[in-house]
Amino acid sequence: MKNILITGGAGFIGSHLCTEILKDSKVKCLVAVDNLLLGTQQNVEHLSADNRFKLVVGDINDMNLLNDLFVSFQFDTVFHLAANSDISISHKSPSIDFDNTFKTSWSVLEAMRIHNCKKIIFASTSAIYGDVTEEIHEDFGPLQPISHYGAGKLASEAFFSSYSYNYGIQTYIFRFPNVVGGSSTHGVIYDFLRKIRENPEKLIVLGNGQQEKTYLHVSDLVQAILYLSSTENERYNVFNVGGTDTINVARIAEIVLEEAGAKHTIEYTGGDRGWIGDVPKFRYKIDKVLSKGWKPLLNSEMAVRKTVQELLTAKMTKLDY
Amino acid sequence: MKNILITGGAGFIGSHLCTEILKDSKVKCLVAVDNLLLGTQQNVEHLSADNRFKLVVGDINDMNLLNDLFVSFQFDTVFHLAANSDISISHKSPSIDFDNTFKTSWSVLEAMRIHNCKKIIFASTSAIYGDVTEEIHEDFGPLQPISHYGAGKLASEAFFSSYSYNYGIQTYIFRFPNVVGGSSTHGVIYDFLRKIRENPEKLIVLGNGQQEKTYLHVSDLVQAILYLSSTENERYNVFNVGGTDTINVARIAEIVLEEAGAKHTIEYTGGDRGWIGDVPKFRYKIDKVLSKGWKPLLNSEMAVRKTVQELLTAKMTKLDY
Repeated sequence: MKNILITGGAGFIGSHLCTEILKDSKVKCLVAVDNLLLGTQQNVEHLSADNRFKLVVGDINDMNLLNDLFVSFQFDTVFHLAANSDISISHKSPSIDFDNTFKTSWSVLEAMRIHNCKKIIFASTSAIYGDVTEEIHEDFGPLQPISHYGAGKLASEAFFSSYSYNYGIQTYIFRFPNVVGGSSTHGVIYDFLRKIRENPEKLIVLGNGQQEKTYLHVSDLVQAILYLSSTENERYNVFNVGGTDTINVARIAEIVLEEAGAKHTIEYTGGDRGWIGDVPKFRYKIDKVLSKGWKPLLNSEMAVRKTVQELLTAKMTKLDY
Repeated sequence: MKNILITGGAGFIGSHLCTEILKDSKVKCLVAVDNLLLGTQQNVEHLSADNRFKLVVGDINDMNLLNDLFVSFQFDTVFHLAANSDISISHKSPSIDFDNTFKTSWSVLEAMRIHNCKKIIFASTSAIYGDVTEEIHEDFGPLQPISHYGAGKLASEAFFSSYSYNYGIQTYIFRFPNVVGGSSTHGVIYDFLRKIRENPEKLIVLGNGQQEKTYLHVSDLVQAILYLSSTENERYNVFNVGGTDTINVARIAEIVLEEAGAKHTIEYTGGDRGWIGDVPKFRYKIDKVLSKGWKPLLNSEMAVRKTVQELLTAKMTKLDY
């Protein structure tokens, strides 16, 4: 029987992970801690009937709260997803990523060390690699993030590495790029849908539309995390997880208009970056996870299209479309 | 005219750097902040007659202190050396490296962002590379430190990278391995001298004596830092700085006994590591700094021997030998 803690469990990815974790009958309890800054109670409402599930509204950096939870529930596994996931906002306020993206990791690691918990799964990011044009594999260097979000995740990984080594904590690092899906709270698809509602004639796109990235649907990501963290057995495991292809922003804009049945003209602001800290293009090498037997069911275009559909279906509550 | 802040300025390396910085007549003021946990007033006593020099005893993580200093002195350059430099002690107390090795970096970066200071020189470490046997160049990956000290420095570098990119801060990262010299407060040479004083017959050496590393004398390191930070002009500069050769622990023990005129027998505790977090052996590639016109005047053996002599000369005050 397993007692599991998930941080950021009411967030976009966290809530999907909760749903899947609870399908495992060996799970005795699943405690989701979330400060509800980006997460919502609505995201996990459908789990409230399962008496193994508990949502705790609180701050991961509150060590008293963490200590109480570890004492009460004797967790044997932690999924650490809590973070500021909105890269673009921290240019003006870097302390958001210091506190929410980095320090939460440190707090979780300290609680695990003190309470002798030996397994953690960490949601990292392709943003730790910075602005590179080479194909990116897991051992790529140098690591020079250009966003504070990427810096906060790399700083987290630094301590995951030393804690794993010093205290024998089995660690799974998943580095993923753009993850999309129906309950996402920001990102390009979400922004485009909001924009075409606000401006009935034009869709203004930041940059030149040529920023090209791989998009992964949250359902595929969750399967990768659960599959690899149960089948791989090294002390320290690092995986790039992403799609096998890319899509550019211009094509995403077209799909959004198609699915919404909208007739907007698309206008580009120009430049090769959407915002400071954005990475114009990257090629993400996922040979390692593919070799382990996982692959995404949806390619980038399918992931984007499904997300638009999911957001449109939820439009009454989410977007007031 | 230059206004310079140096953190950890009363420490082992910091104090040597202060001495050299003040030789530059273009320096208008040099403010050293140090909490005197590892640094000492004695290390900078010889500078007290220079009215451009000021030692402030305080904590770098005290943002009020930092803000006051930046307002008063309008620094244009920061040398950030403050850290817990004793790798072996943080296994039991990782918060030492969180607060002193990592958070100090964050505090300095925030002060620079707020007060618009645009140049920083950072003392990083070869420990960010972790336990690797391959030859280590600056772009090496993956970066998986095994000590919390290495983690704290890598976490610092992560934010140096994002701050440099976001705010145009010119950044010089110097990654160095074992640095030795007469006012060092810990490390293998210091330990051996203390041990032969405490035990008149045997010198007990942790590990099997075969841990092989490169040693750099502090005088060579300081020259590298000042030379490269004044001649290189990239926005973000990373350099491995080390010796061109290696020396093993057994040979260091012999040199210590030779220079001290001692007749102890040497006994090894066995195992390929001196302590948890120690790296048994590495090969450090310094082609990049050599190509820029710097090279160490002392090789590893000379650096070790000079340090033993310096520590013995200072024995009355330092070691009570």
